[in-house]
Amino acid sequence: MQRVPILKLGDVLIVSIQIDLEDQSVLALQEDLADAVVQHGAKGVIIDITAVEIVDSFIGRMLATIASMCGMLDAQTVVVGMRPAVAITLVELGLSLGGVRTALNLEKGVALLDHIRSATP
Amino acid sequence: MQRVPILKLGDVLIVSIQIDLEDQSVLALQEDLADAVVQHGAKGVIIDITAVEIVDSFIGRMLATIASMCGMLDAQTVVVGMRPAVAITLVELGLSLGGVRTALNLEKGVALLDHIRSATP
Repeated sequence: MQRVPILKLGDVLIVSIQIDLEDQSVLALQEDLADAVVQHGAKGVIIDITAVEIVDSFIGRMLATIASMCGMLDAQTVVVGMRPAVAITLVELGLSLGGVRTALNLEKGVALLDHIRSATP
Repeated sequence: MQRVPILKLGDVLIVSIQIDLEDQSVLALQEDLADAVVQHGAKGVIIDITAVEIVDSFIGRMLATIASMCGMLDAQTVVVGMRPAVAITLVELGLSLGGVRTALNLEKGVALLDHIRSATP
């Protein structure tokens, strides 16, 4: 099983998903992320899906679960780098990402996290 | 062929290598990176190899080539996230990364790039 590496930059964790995620990898990623959020006291998690060509309900649910989980640990999640085709497919299939915040790219994701944090006391 | 996504944060490009790179992917990555450096006017490139379990002479040469190429385009390259086992193997095999700068993790890589830039006029 391949593990998705988690990068840390300040109090933001960055995860770039490039491999095809199976059940095991998803569970491992969720655990690793929760551990990393606690260990580093991260305030934000950015998940980059630039390399993901197909977002089905499985991936959508995973993203929503990660966001809820990190939310419990007081970290905001932003999904960045969604391909236009993925956005189209999601809407056509009637899938949602469970209210997960999105941003165009990593830079805008970091800016969004800064904005969210400055808005909450 | 899978392409490795290139993330941009400020004037630094971040590449996280997670897939097994074949010749084609390496060539594509080198081209994409050179294009991205020029397009975004990037001053630094950080290559994360946390997920890379084996660095052989092929990967070593790739990293050195990317560093030289980015150097020509006035961008410094830093390799981050090397596993201890990889460092041991590199030394045991007598391989070098062709003078490529390394840092422990993404954060220290960004700090190193800042330092390099403040040192050069």
